[in-house]
Amino acid sequence: MGNKINLSKYNIRTDLIVDIIDNNSNVNKETDTYEGVKITRVEVKKDMEEELNKKKGTYITIEFDDVTNYEDREKIGKCFENEIKKLLNKLNIKDDDDCLIIGLGNEKSTPDALGPLSIKNILVTRHLFILNTNHKEGLRSVSAVIPDVMGNTGIETSDIIKSIVNTIKPKFIITIDALASSSINRLNKTIQMTDTGIHPGSGIGNSRKEINKNTIGVPVIAIGVPTVVESSIIVNDTIKYLLKHISYIKNNFSKSKLTYTKFGNYLDKIKNSDLSQEEKKEILGMIGELSEEDKLSLINEVLTSINYNLMVTNTEIDYLILKLSEIIANSLNNALHRQISHF
Amino acid sequence: MGNKINLSKYNIRTDLIVDIIDNNSNVNKETDTYEGVKITRVEVKKDMEEELNKKKGTYITIEFDDVTNYEDREKIGKCFENEIKKLLNKLNIKDDDDCLIIGLGNEKSTPDALGPLSIKNILVTRHLFILNTNHKEGLRSVSAVIPDVMGNTGIETSDIIKSIVNTIKPKFIITIDALASSSINRLNKTIQMTDTGIHPGSGIGNSRKEINKNTIGVPVIAIGVPTVVESSIIVNDTIKYLLKHISYIKNNFSKSKLTYTKFGNYLDKIKNSDLSQEEKKEILGMIGELSEEDKLSLINEVLTSINYNLMVTNTEIDYLILKLSEIIANSLNNALHRQISHF
Amino acid sequence: MGNKINLSKYNIRTDLIVDIIDNNSNVNKETDTYEGVKITRVEVKKDMEEELNKKKGTYITIEFDDVTNYEDREKIGKCFENEIKKLLNKLNIKDDDDCLIIGLGNEKSTPDALGPLSIKNILVTRHLFILNTNHKEGLRSVSAVIPDVMGNTGIETSDIIKSIVNTIKPKFIITIDALASSSINRLNKTIQMTDTGIHPGSGIGNSRKEINKNTIGVPVIAIGVPTVVESSIIVNDTIKYLLKHISYIKNNFSKSKLTYTKFGNYLDKIKNSDLSQEEKKEILGMIGELSEEDKLSLINEVLTSINYNLMVTNTEIDYLILKLSEIIANSLNNALHRQISHF
Amino acid sequence: MGNKINLSKYNIRTDLIVDIIDNNSNVNKETDTYEGVKITRVEVKKDMEEELNKKKGTYITIEFDDVTNYEDREKIGKCFENEIKKLLNKLNIKDDDDCLIIGLGNEKSTPDALGPLSIKNILVTRHLFILNTNHKEGLRSVSAVIPDVMGNTGIETSDIIKSIVNTIKPKFIITIDALASSSINRLNKTIQMTDTGIHPGSGIGNSRKEINKNTIGVPVIAIGVPTVVESSIIVNDTIKYLLKHISYIKNNFSKSKLTYTKFGNYLDKIKNSDLSQEEKKEILGMIGELSEEDKLSLINEVLTSINYNLMVTNTEIDYLILKLSEIIANSLNNALHRQISHF
Repeated sequence: MGNKINLSKYNIRTDLIVDIIDNNSNVNKETDTYEGVKITRVEVKKDMEEELNKKKGTYITIEFDDVTNYEDREKIGKCFENEIKKLLNKLNIKDDDDCLIIGLGNEKSTPDALGPLSIKNILVTRHLFILNTNHKEGLRSVSAVIPDVMGNTGIETSDIIKSIVNTIKPKFIITIDALASSSINRLNKTIQMTDTGIHPGSGIGNSRKEINKNTIGVPVIAIGVPTVVESSIIVNDTIKYLLKHISYIKNNFSKSKLTYTKFGNYLDKIKNSDLSQEEKKEILGMIGELSEEDKLSLINEVLTSINYNLMVTNTEIDYLILKLSEIIANSLNNALHRQISHF
Repeated sequence: MGNKINLSKYNIRTDLIVDIIDNNSNVNKETDTYEGVKITRVEVKKDMEEELNKKKGTYITIEFDDVTNYEDREKIGKCFENEIKKLLNKLNIKDDDDCLIIGLGNEKSTPDALGPLSIKNILVTRHLFILNTNHKEGLRSVSAVIPDVMGNTGIETSDIIKSIVNTIKPKFIITIDALASSSINRLNKTIQMTDTGIHPGSGIGNSRKEINKNTIGVPVIAIGVPTVVESSIIVNDTIKYLLKHISYIKNNFSKSKLTYTKFGNYLDKIKNSDLSQEEKKEILGMIGELSEEDKLSLINEVLTSINYNLMVTNTEIDYLILKLSEIIANSLNNALHRQISHF
Repeated sequence: MGNKINLSKYNIRTDLIVDIIDNNSNVNKETDTYEGVKITRVEVKKDMEEELNKKKGTYITIEFDDVTNYEDREKIGKCFENEIKKLLNKLNIKDDDDCLIIGLGNEKSTPDALGPLSIKNILVTRHLFILNTNHKEGLRSVSAVIPDVMGNTGIETSDIIKSIVNTIKPKFIITIDALASSSINRLNKTIQMTDTGIHPGSGIGNSRKEINKNTIGVPVIAIGVPTVVESSIIVNDTIKYLLKHISYIKNNFSKSKLTYTKFGNYLDKIKNSDLSQEEKKEILGMIGELSEEDKLSLINEVLTSINYNLMVTNTEIDYLILKLSEIIANSLNNALHRQISHF
Repeated sequence: MGNKINLSKYNIRTDLIVDIIDNNSNVNKETDTYEGVKITRVEVKKDMEEELNKKKGTYITIEFDDVTNYEDREKIGKCFENEIKKLLNKLNIKDDDDCLIIGLGNEKSTPDALGPLSIKNILVTRHLFILNTNHKEGLRSVSAVIPDVMGNTGIETSDIIKSIVNTIKPKFIITIDALASSSINRLNKTIQMTDTGIHPGSGIGNSRKEINKNTIGVPVIAIGVPTVVESSIIVNDTIKYLLKHISYIKNNFSKSKLTYTKFGNYLDKIKNSDLSQEEKKEILGMIGELSEEDKLSLINEVLTSINYNLMVTNTEIDYLILKLSEIIANSLNNALHRQISHF
């Protein structure tokens, strides 16, 4: 029973702002790169909240290809550290403001263990300030908790968080959590940070459970990595690329031949190939004529009605979560403290 | 580095005989049930080896819906125990024949940890016979090893196994391993056992690495559970059901309406709905006209060329692997020993 | 840093009432047995608090020899379940009173992991009541938290507990923790339960941090197992038995011979052999003349001044903690719920 | 059952050469320091084997105070790396000689998990040579196995090792194991390396199970850390220091006063204080008159006959084993490969 897995947190269709703005040109965004790592900064204004189903605030996303290589991890970590520092500045958080870090999710379920695992590598120092030891030179007061999921504790996670926040009264909060992706190409390849806080297990409607500046009184920075994706999204994405692939071949080669040896970055090559409604119908019949939204909805319906709309993850997830949690913890340690003598 | 994950073992398209015979009516099979658990027994003859890409021998598969419930696990375990006992009898294995159990796979990668985790619950007794203690009453001599994967040891797994087998000379061998599925509906819902042994990381061609009666001299029973599936299979399966779904609606209702509220077991309802080539083209255009094989091949090609043909698994995999490994270990303990006084 | 181990909780000389009353005949105790498990029930009155350095209240201790055997574990578990039920009755706790279970200690330090490990096997049900599901038949509302230690969170454990208690307002609390022993023969062989609550990291003076009926307003049952012991206690105990051993031999055999083959339960044989002051001096010189208390104090001083007064534990501690946590969790599950359909 | 702990490996009184030569001035030793880390190099000649109960060969021991501090770990690691490199040179092991590393012990028992945990951080490369990839630049071929203990596998550990060695035929072997200490002050504060190989579960008599150059044909370097100690050794050591402590006070102060505030390194101050037989008798009576050997033997007898001669370990063992295994693995990685591009 204690082992039962609570998937309610995966209910939200997508947790990534970049998944949304891919298909919405009304949003102002700023893009940047750091040593090959792609950075996207988005400001959601009050009047866009409903359209985007996203809270107003700042969203920063970094995207990368690979965490299996030491050099790449160094770059991702440095980029993430820089962006977190800028966000702290923007929120007027001072060098000695007390910080509480919260590792959300379920340690016993690998794709949901990003938060708890990150906490294990966080440099916790608040007790050095309480005990007034000499070892706090150059350090900020940082505490860290793993509230666990409702299926394991029997208690709503937001209740546990609010209790602790009310008692220790930090100056700001950082949460770390696994997210759901709405595109296969961002799975375990993206870190999002935002100052809009968290609203566990719900959309923007359910304000009772929200943990953000309005409900808690202090800034709440939410860090997330998409670690799971619905099968229907995999199917929908594949059909999208299938259309682009066939279109690309038809336009560049003869109509009859459907296969073709690819060179270079094939995705970049076909990405912008847009098909006419006529072409779509030719290649994919009635299905091809549906809008993106209707197609995803239909796929979803089929998979759900036969009980196959699995939430899935990479098979290398143990290794990926380990490395991602190390990147996040180390970068936070560097961003939060002026000087870390080694522990 | 030691953390790198070796996916070469997932190279084989499918490891399950039932995935193959779904589409092949030439195979003699016997079906049975035990308290709701479905049993399929298949004998592959020499002359069918090439067509099925499966070694000649006995394959027994049990299929079930759910391992999250205690009562269901009891039934699955009892069914598995019965089938293993029958297989031991068929292979003329005697009550006191020495057994070596091998837990294949990578303990550090959850979907690949079925073998190592099962071993942890195996009742190991061989040393009681070596040391000649009194505690061996009613017990068979059983030893158990976890050879780990080449990425962690630097040594071919079959080399480690053969070394140990040559030294301790068991009368028969049981292996436990995670498999790849070629259908989404069997993922973590099937246990296969066969007397054909294992051929790590290859099809039936590469005989050098095979561990079976021919290469080792003693019977090798391989137990496997499909825990991973390729994205392309998810897409292909979904398209198949999408066609059946639309066809079902069209035939039962008006042509124009694509959505519909489902009752009862919808999968059973649409499963046998077969579409004409004409219908397939209408619904799915050029893609609809392709054969099953060409369609899967095309999907595979698209996903591979844009690097998205992920091998995926359920997000509840930690819990599922834990319960499946307990079922396997407990049933083996019961099948192998005449009487277990509790440890 | 997050890995640093907080030993402050081991500061108290002894946590077991039976260690104290061994040497104090002023205390009323009731002894009992259940299938070979020894039970001691003690009521500490207000006027004995100071003398015993123990809070007034009920203390129940069960003592056993071995948790490596399945049959023995069954008996220990049943005995513990019976005593917990009696204590719940005595405290007027009703069948449907909401319960919060707290697993104290550090999961990353094996001898201190009893609390966290026990929680993993606790049947958590409070969310079934919140969500008002049908699965709560025969069950009590139970929640469970692992507050972790200050070295890992930066927050005083009692602050975390009080925050959560104030929010969810349980009708009673059960804590589970590892204790320090003041005798080697009870190490990992005793479970103590008491209604006096806990006072983390201190004696009875520091009331600010206490978690008990007075500070929290609801009954707090503390369950503990001694899993660690100071080296000085090992030395002192050994010297005590050394004296008894030599005296026994001298009285039963010739003076000159110091070694002797033992039969039966040698400890029982020598336990009651009391030496005169003269004998003690003869055998152990100046040291022999010291009172028990002065001897322990001297040993403590020597070991502390050369930095060797280690807190130690059995080398089989991983196995022992695992089995003890299973006994505690299973017995609590049985004692707290009227009927458990299997999960 | 699979969880049962095999303590047979702890049968040997002491595994450390420095524990023996402390009390034997016949042995030639060379002492050195590296940044505060103490180094002792001993050559045991054939004619000393029996007297020392140690195989002829080279023994290098490094001793240190603390692994809880990053800077200290860096120094210990560098010192260990230097000594291993010198030993490889002395044994004429070449830069590209194939190496097999064996992690002995039981991963499930923390104080016995040093070997298995070290293996997790070893850079394994042999498969890169088998597969002939480009990534092997600057690397030696290294493989690594965890043979587990007989209680878990049912197979003698030496049988597993010999099987694998015969199959992959490395040019030299390195083993890593937890040892038993015969003094409390070296517990988890010493790393020993020797070219004499290992003889699991026995003294030098049982040659059948030995893994060394004679039985295997290639050099076997055994690395060990004392992680457990018998209670009787703690008691005997304490009595020894108790005598020195009292003698020191008596000689420096008045006879009547037994307690005294210590300054500086008190151990160094009292270490060399030798007592006359007369003094020993005065302070410790008959016991004081016994030889060191007889005293230990008597203590052992008392504790064994009442079943309290526990094998114990520090309560911080999880943290200590983690850090020690990291030091060993990282230093081995640096010593074995010419150049490690980061993984």
